[in-house]
Amino acid sequence: MIELENGVFMEQVETFAKRHQWSVVRDMLLLLEPADIAAILAEVSEELLPLLYRVLPKEPAAEVFVEMDPEEQEVLIKGFSDTELKEVLDELYVDDTVDLIEEMPATVVKRILKHTDPQTRQSVNEILNYPEDSAGSIMTTEFVDLKRDMTVEAALKRIRRTGVDKETINICYVTDPSRHLLGLVSIRTLLLADDDDVIEDIMETNYISVSTMDDREDVAQYLSKYDFLAMPVVDKESRLVGIVTIDDAIDVMEEETTEDFELMAGITPTDKPYLRAGVIETVKSRIPWLMLLMLSATFTGIVINGFEDKLAACSVLMGFIPMLMGTGGNCGNQSSVAVIRGLSLNEIDFSDIFRVAWKEARVAVMCGVMLASANFVKLLLIDRWLMGNADLTVLVALAICLTLICTVFCAKVVGAMLPLLAEKIGLDPAVLAAPFISTIVDVLSLLIYFRFATALLGL
Amino acid sequence: MIELENGVFMEQVETFAKRHQWSVVRDMLLLLEPADIAAILAEVSEELLPLLYRVLPKEPAAEVFVEMDPEEQEVLIKGFSDTELKEVLDELYVDDTVDLIEEMPATVVKRILKHTDPQTRQSVNEILNYPEDSAGSIMTTEFVDLKRDMTVEAALKRIRRTGVDKETINICYVTDPSRHLLGLVSIRTLLLADDDDVIEDIMETNYISVSTMDDREDVAQYLSKYDFLAMPVVDKESRLVGIVTIDDAIDVMEEETTEDFELMAGITPTDKPYLRAGVIETVKSRIPWLMLLMLSATFTGIVINGFEDKLAACSVLMGFIPMLMGTGGNCGNQSSVAVIRGLSLNEIDFSDIFRVAWKEARVAVMCGVMLASANFVKLLLIDRWLMGNADLTVLVALAICLTLICTVFCAKVVGAMLPLLAEKIGLDPAVLAAPFISTIVDVLSLLIYFRFATALLGL
Repeated sequence: MIELENGVFMEQVETFAKRHQWSVVRDMLLLLEPADIAAILAEVSEELLPLLYRVLPKEPAAEVFVEMDPEEQEVLIKGFSDTELKEVLDELYVDDTVDLIEEMPATVVKRILKHTDPQTRQSVNEILNYPEDSAGSIMTTEFVDLKRDMTVEAALKRIRRTGVDKETINICYVTDPSRHLLGLVSIRTLLLADDDDVIEDIMETNYISVSTMDDREDVAQYLSKYDFLAMPVVDKESRLVGIVTIDDAIDVMEEETTEDFELMAGITPTDKPYLRAGVIETVKSRIPWLMLLMLSATFTGIVINGFEDKLAACSVLMGFIPMLMGTGGNCGNQSSVAVIRGLSLNEIDFSDIFRVAWKEARVAVMCGVMLASANFVKLLLIDRWLMGNADLTVLVALAICLTLICTVFCAKVVGAMLPLLAEKIGLDPAVLAAPFISTIVDVLSLLIYFRFATALLGL
Repeated sequence: MIELENGVFMEQVETFAKRHQWSVVRDMLLLLEPADIAAILAEVSEELLPLLYRVLPKEPAAEVFVEMDPEEQEVLIKGFSDTELKEVLDELYVDDTVDLIEEMPATVVKRILKHTDPQTRQSVNEILNYPEDSAGSIMTTEFVDLKRDMTVEAALKRIRRTGVDKETINICYVTDPSRHLLGLVSIRTLLLADDDDVIEDIMETNYISVSTMDDREDVAQYLSKYDFLAMPVVDKESRLVGIVTIDDAIDVMEEETTEDFELMAGITPTDKPYLRAGVIETVKSRIPWLMLLMLSATFTGIVINGFEDKLAACSVLMGFIPMLMGTGGNCGNQSSVAVIRGLSLNEIDFSDIFRVAWKEARVAVMCGVMLASANFVKLLLIDRWLMGNADLTVLVALAICLTLICTVFCAKVVGAMLPLLAEKIGLDPAVLAAPFISTIVDVLSLLIYFRFATALLGL
């Protein structure tokens, strides 16, 4: 509902702002969720932005701040007084502070670190030290920890006392004095238990944790697979250092999916939304692959040129090159996408390579034969008989259709195997998808075509 | 860790099962999460499956049951006595029962409905009545509802009393006597409030809800955008009828993403994991698009055949056809994928069509000029000078490079516009992606190529 009226809403906000009726502006903005307020602020002028932001009460203001894009965050921070900056920073969770620091230019970072309290600064620095795609880099260090010998009553008291600063209280973590993770207990379990039950007796000891260095994509997959709301992150000595919450996991999943889509289309991934990325930036992310693929098409050129004289002698063959290459490309694409998606959902892994190959081979034979049969009938019925193309003899049709069968077979097997091999050697399988596979399949299909043409037509 | 040892673990389980050491088997299985136990059960023989399932205690058994694939669920149900079936069904949440019923054959469904209690049966039937992709179809009717005049203490008591049967207690919903939704209150707010605070004063009245008929994909996007753990679903009269929880939203997001990937590769979406889908099924999901696209390649054939004589006269032109079509296809692909992804993340919508067109046009001109320049240099330096291809005159190179610029432009604009238009007329934008766009771009690039060749080379 809000989406539809965004334009009207914006206008009204701007009108009231012009009239300096700030309390009306505040009441209007507070009708929205933080993410929507951030979207509104992204659209207003740079002068209006800090004015609108300042009408918000402290707590929603911090929530809105977290939802904003780095560009607007930077504008705001530059306009903040030291006190204002400190107020916002105090409201942020550690992982949000880390995200902010990662996006800001060095001078702004310095100012931010100066105004965070020493304990947060230490946590921030720790998290910043983990590699970019690791579990450690997306975790938060603000979780509820309980002791094994507490009663439920004491635990609830502790949650009430400290919970306000924690990112989630839905899952609490039970640790020993040296911070080793002993088990977990959900707020639900706590509430449904008796007041004098002891944590040790009701906690789940059979939990799943990840290590700080694990791939963040795997962590997100675990959270999704096991329907968890949060996942504990432990260091090499099995000490609990943080948790990854479901909302951050969802962001990771969306980012990784976008990355897969982009790689598969030959785009270098960026993390900017489509309309946010400038023209130069977009060109930069697209041109390298286009260039590479264009130059690699030289091979198809060489194959065709090598066959030039024979093609000139039997010119009817020429018109079917795009169809053969296209169908090969589409077949390879289907298989590679199916395998890449299976890999990222952890439905298949490298050990399944023979099952995948065997499946694709059978699918390929069936698809190939069906396509070739349909094409054979179409060639003779429509092209030869109906449209009177006398050059299109039965032998020519046969050459085309045999090529189709072999091309489909090669395309499907290559398309399914390449992503698996990429995964094995540690590349992102999506890199080897559509564009690459169709370049390989193009050359293969031409070689097969000319081979059959030479043999069958005696060229 | 579990993944790596899956094979060994399985073997051990099977060995102990053979020796009828069921308590050992049970203890081993209970080390795992329900999703992992389900994965193990999917691998064992049909005889062993019910035996292993029966060693599990009632509650984990139900959780494992929910995680299993329909094939194994059917095997189990068919082997269940009526009492066993009732026991499992009693443990399931309403939305899980709905999922089960949707997957089972009619005879099994009849038996399931016979053994669910009347109230659940009514909820199940209600949910089954919503269209397949609606919010209503994925919601659960088991949520915690509170009254506005309750104290926090009374509310917590109510949660303790009824919470065990609810899918989540993290968010509670405040309704009036005619079930209109008044507000929501999180368990965190309840715990951090004073015992004698009144719900009315602490509840969030400025909430977002969806309607039963809203698209389930939009609901999932809302949950992700606003970082909610659950979202209320209301009927036309604004009465609260259910909630959608974050774990179900994640499943929807994954399914919809897989569907996008499949559509973009010309595969009819199925909801079976890659290795689960049989060969015939896979062929069925792939062959229609291949057939359609193969036949539509007839157009490229017609264009080439119409130009046959002139191509024969200047045969050097032929070798560059695949490169031109390929580059056009890659360019169109990049734009369409970027736009499709933006659409599904709600970053862009139809009203942005002019901004998108203007951006793509500028990107296209820059990419086109860069690709053409690189190609021009390569043609004259490598093909003509180094490889001594005398046919490749400056005019031929010019024809190729001008074609490249125009093709890239058309491809990028067509690639970006088609998904937006598809969205506008209510089609899934992904349907019009890669395969279709490259067919259109293929024809366009040939027409442009032959036009430039005729004009420049006087053919």
